[in-house]
Amino acid sequence: MPRPLLLSPDRLFPSDPAQRDIARRLYKEVADLPIVSPHGHTDPGWFAGNAPFGNAAELLLHPDHYIFRMLYSQGIPLDALGIRNRDAEPRESWRLFAGNYHLFRGTPSRMWMDWVFAEAFGFDVQFSAETSDLYYDRITEALATDAFRPRALFDRFGIEVIATTESPLDTLEHHAAIRTANESGEWGGRVITAYRPDPVVDPEFEGFRDNLQRFSELSGEDAFSYAGYLAAHRNRRAFFAEMGATSTDHGHPTAATADLPYAEAEVLFARVTGDKVSAADAELFRAHMLTVMAGMSLDDGLVMQIHPGAFRNHNPWLFDHYGRDKGADIPMSTDYVHALRPLLGRYGNEAGLTIILFTLDETSYARELAPLAGHYPALKLGPAWWFHDSPEGMRRFRSQMTETAGFYNSVGFNDDTRAFLSIPARHDVARRIDCGFLAQLVAEHRMAEWEAAELAADLSYNLAKAAYKL
Amino acid sequence: MPRPLLLSPDRLFPSDPAQRDIARRLYKEVADLPIVSPHGHTDPGWFAGNAPFGNAAELLLHPDHYIFRMLYSQGIPLDALGIRNRDAEPRESWRLFAGNYHLFRGTPSRMWMDWVFAEAFGFDVQFSAETSDLYYDRITEALATDAFRPRALFDRFGIEVIATTESPLDTLEHHAAIRTANESGEWGGRVITAYRPDPVVDPEFEGFRDNLQRFSELSGEDAFSYAGYLAAHRNRRAFFAEMGATSTDHGHPTAATADLPYAEAEVLFARVTGDKVSAADAELFRAHMLTVMAGMSLDDGLVMQIHPGAFRNHNPWLFDHYGRDKGADIPMSTDYVHALRPLLGRYGNEAGLTIILFTLDETSYARELAPLAGHYPALKLGPAWWFHDSPEGMRRFRSQMTETAGFYNSVGFNDDTRAFLSIPARHDVARRIDCGFLAQLVAEHRMAEWEAAELAADLSYNLAKAAYKL
Amino acid sequence: MPRPLLLSPDRLFPSDPAQRDIARRLYKEVADLPIVSPHGHTDPGWFAGNAPFGNAAELLLHPDHYIFRMLYSQGIPLDALGIRNRDAEPRESWRLFAGNYHLFRGTPSRMWMDWVFAEAFGFDVQFSAETSDLYYDRITEALATDAFRPRALFDRFGIEVIATTESPLDTLEHHAAIRTANESGEWGGRVITAYRPDPVVDPEFEGFRDNLQRFSELSGEDAFSYAGYLAAHRNRRAFFAEMGATSTDHGHPTAATADLPYAEAEVLFARVTGDKVSAADAELFRAHMLTVMAGMSLDDGLVMQIHPGAFRNHNPWLFDHYGRDKGADIPMSTDYVHALRPLLGRYGNEAGLTIILFTLDETSYARELAPLAGHYPALKLGPAWWFHDSPEGMRRFRSQMTETAGFYNSVGFNDDTRAFLSIPARHDVARRIDCGFLAQLVAEHRMAEWEAAELAADLSYNLAKAAYKL
Repeated sequence: MPRPLLLSPDRLFPSDPAQRDIARRLYKEVADLPIVSPHGHTDPGWFAGNAPFGNAAELLLHPDHYIFRMLYSQGIPLDALGIRNRDAEPRESWRLFAGNYHLFRGTPSRMWMDWVFAEAFGFDVQFSAETSDLYYDRITEALATDAFRPRALFDRFGIEVIATTESPLDTLEHHAAIRTANESGEWGGRVITAYRPDPVVDPEFEGFRDNLQRFSELSGEDAFSYAGYLAAHRNRRAFFAEMGATSTDHGHPTAATADLPYAEAEVLFARVTGDKVSAADAELFRAHMLTVMAGMSLDDGLVMQIHPGAFRNHNPWLFDHYGRDKGADIPMSTDYVHALRPLLGRYGNEAGLTIILFTLDETSYARELAPLAGHYPALKLGPAWWFHDSPEGMRRFRSQMTETAGFYNSVGFNDDTRAFLSIPARHDVARRIDCGFLAQLVAEHRMAEWEAAELAADLSYNLAKAAYKL
Repeated sequence: MPRPLLLSPDRLFPSDPAQRDIARRLYKEVADLPIVSPHGHTDPGWFAGNAPFGNAAELLLHPDHYIFRMLYSQGIPLDALGIRNRDAEPRESWRLFAGNYHLFRGTPSRMWMDWVFAEAFGFDVQFSAETSDLYYDRITEALATDAFRPRALFDRFGIEVIATTESPLDTLEHHAAIRTANESGEWGGRVITAYRPDPVVDPEFEGFRDNLQRFSELSGEDAFSYAGYLAAHRNRRAFFAEMGATSTDHGHPTAATADLPYAEAEVLFARVTGDKVSAADAELFRAHMLTVMAGMSLDDGLVMQIHPGAFRNHNPWLFDHYGRDKGADIPMSTDYVHALRPLLGRYGNEAGLTIILFTLDETSYARELAPLAGHYPALKLGPAWWFHDSPEGMRRFRSQMTETAGFYNSVGFNDDTRAFLSIPARHDVARRIDCGFLAQLVAEHRMAEWEAAELAADLSYNLAKAAYKL
Repeated sequence: MPRPLLLSPDRLFPSDPAQRDIARRLYKEVADLPIVSPHGHTDPGWFAGNAPFGNAAELLLHPDHYIFRMLYSQGIPLDALGIRNRDAEPRESWRLFAGNYHLFRGTPSRMWMDWVFAEAFGFDVQFSAETSDLYYDRITEALATDAFRPRALFDRFGIEVIATTESPLDTLEHHAAIRTANESGEWGGRVITAYRPDPVVDPEFEGFRDNLQRFSELSGEDAFSYAGYLAAHRNRRAFFAEMGATSTDHGHPTAATADLPYAEAEVLFARVTGDKVSAADAELFRAHMLTVMAGMSLDDGLVMQIHPGAFRNHNPWLFDHYGRDKGADIPMSTDYVHALRPLLGRYGNEAGLTIILFTLDETSYARELAPLAGHYPALKLGPAWWFHDSPEGMRRFRSQMTETAGFYNSVGFNDDTRAFLSIPARHDVARRIDCGFLAQLVAEHRMAEWEAAELAADLSYNLAKAAYKL
């Protein structure tokens, strides 16, 4: 007999009755606020073309590296799951997922998926080997209907605005198509882009020199001279801003920044665009460019996001056979105190600049990031990120950040996902955890309930809009 | 309408009824114990001269870098707050503070200030833009009365003893004046000093060579020869001890220690007192001097405190314009295992020596400090420090330290503050959090309540007296 | 009047009534499951010879470095405690322990000892100065009875299987004797060994070259040539497996691994078996051998355990006077991301290989280990280890590991102890804490109770059996 699938209205609230009652009241006021998604990785093509999503496995299993990395960790081959393998029968891959759904107990993926199953698709029995085909068929059928096309889901999910992330080499055609649909009244959804220049900033990025060639073409500047390269950035940033972008995003292995004199930077640029690039030069150039990008943000008003600290593609065999973003990126211990000083020394006192900093190294929360953000006007703290975007991860974030940085140096929630259907679930988890955290402060008489209610709305909605200028 | 200001009698206790009831009982027995403040930064001149404190901004805003750094982090200029700016109208600065008091929600500063407002000044409405002038006027008026002079507050706060912190270059005139007042029966308050030799131990300290010149004059030794330098320390330590000091204090960027042979130390001393000092030599000399100071403590009985791990003056523009101690000191990742080995290898087995170690790097609590303090007879653990002197910080300290080091390798609470009026609030927070932590142990049947009651008194009072020989 | 000694049936459960009720139900189902002890340091000679244990101090104080290091940290000389001092009167040493039992408040040692006192020996008054002799006499008397001989306790404790840990230089005579007793029907207890090759893998181990000589003799291979050395390992591993071993164990200062080409390894081997060994060569050889051992495990099926990150013998004076394992081993900050990459790059994708990784650096839980184990098929996470084998340590382990790695990349509990009498207490603590952790997930509606019940049995029993192939 399949087990019932129930989403408790009290899920994720503290079980202490005093705290739970307060959390319920706080949550009630924010549960239905619109979703502001200022950073993520959904595909703008979905909203431009509005084509139906495929089958259950294609939508929910193949693109979700949280899901397939866990299955892989228990010895299930990626091939059998249909990862980069068109020969796999999707229903069979789905059955492997279903039969191993117990592996996700205690993980956020389990909570997100259960929300998608119950709320998006209306299931009332649990996902398991026994219900695998029921799930596969009903989901696949639903996806063929108009109600499950991307724009309909966007509207149904109450998304006020969503940001995607594109490289400067992207022509933003999908965003243009969405804008046309907006202007014609065909669809009102707001989908903006963000400027993520890693492919033309990181000399170790695949195809860096080809990327610079394309960067030149798109910008009409000579991106192989340092002056032209900087002009090309200014040009593309302006184009992105015109297409709605309010932010940039920078994914670097470390948080290193540097602030080189122009002439030194010019010489370094010549080296990193040359034939052989040393690891030290690549790191120094990335470090320098973070400071350059902060300067450009001060000029053009784009909010700057920094996402450092992942060792990308840790598993060489997997990378060779399946490529990047397959669940093999591993966080590293990351220094911020020394690393950020060149950038903060140059621009940290600018109250008109917003730098939103993320970390994969939770040890820096109370030790480095809260003290930095609790001092520098330009610095704000991004929410608990990636592996830490989870109930316990969010609790650690709040309990380690707040006492030094307060709530107002944080910026609300980011879903940061390409798993479109899980977006409401992710925001809901964040709202519930924040309400529970606030409820504890109220129950311990560290804050009045009216203050917690103001904060609940700020953390769920207002801070993200303000910090990202949305 | 202003909101009421209420300090709940249950504040900071766990909200679980079983734990809260136990916490209440434990706290009741320790709430009124006298305050022992074995380490801090109050100004002995206050107690020597007993002059009234100035206006509200001068007393509560200008000297408190916890407060103005948070305001600054949100874009409020320090000039407007009256920091190093005599042109700022204090009432206007105070209004900026009042209008942004929501920034402190969830921070310890908020709790300390609310205590000062409610308990020291008797307010029953919350501090806000609306009540700013009411607060400013009533506080400023109160400060002009005898009841709010330093000695009266000292007595009212139930302070049994307070230690200030002075450099060897200080003549301790204020302490002498206080002693005279004590001896004449004019005032009974016990105010002692502590020996903080950083200005003559750290070759990178501002004016190091001038400091050695003054060190020579005060000690009557030639502090420019290594032998004379050591003799000067012995001389000034003896003078400090005679003036009541029971401890020394050492604020170093790292926890590095070294134990050089005399001849090598002599050569190093010649280098660091020369024209140009390398960073490596400066670090080695500081490291060596920690071991030398431990040796002197073994001789003269002064308890040794080590406060390592802050990157001082991280913001160069701010330092240039506003000087040190302006909220721009940032904790760093700090190693203890290797760093302390030279010192502990030499003196760690001395049961007659007490070294009290603090950290700004909480990751060392369970990993390094509890195992070290749970083994070496000479080593004790200072309480949660600075950024971590907060409800959650204290909970992390106890839950990560106790299982390996026990309670009896810790030394009770330090307020470590120059914010005199907040001292009772800070001790009260520590007592409440410790009682709550103990209550959890009792409620989970990990300890009997009579044991928790003994511990509550030890953590609130007895351990500090014993460890600091007060 | 002595205080009563009571073990509450609810000890270590959360005190929140909703969570406690669930925890009670979960615990009830696992409390009496047999003990599987897949890794530890009991002496196989106890079970081979079945001689009675000596007096109270000999059994419970002298071998337990958790106990005497805490007493030592408070200034009690090891000599007085009878550590390496046959002149100490055991009853007097025991009195020192009794009189200082308050030092253990809040530590796991206290809980384990109270269990031993109450459950193994039937005391109902608390251990203290007042009851010291009562305890000493009753325990010492009991130990002389048949009911307290090693095999009787093994049976009474419900141990299904226990693994000891031996070096390749051990002849496993005790295990042979136990096997004989098993085969003759004299005794049914299952005691297996584990292969811990540190003395012949670590060039800095005391007597490394002598060890290789003995290794050659025992294996019949020339362990001074690299080829012979590898063959000697294969030979001894096979012998250990034949004697019941299902695992190997590797205690290294760091987690460094390397994967050298054969010719390079051969040259390195020649250097580290030569007269002078550099620290870098020693580290590289240990690193390389971890990868070699993983390869052999893939061949012979032995599960591989890695226990890295302890700075051994931190206190030189203590080491000189009392030797190793005297409570002076201190955890260090440990990198895994870079360190394990050579090994995982070579063997991490092997679903048929099991590597169980432990850490003394809790900061790696959420940052490095959960992401690694949540991806690589070969990698599993050992339980909270050594200093972290404690209620709060286990809670941190679960709350920081589970969201990324799930429960099924962990392997249940290890007691890892030589304190035989405390083994049931240690497993009981783990079961209670796990049930409490699961109860919180259920009470917060993050998991159904039937799932928690399955997990409680898995964490208490099934996962250890499966992971260690028992």
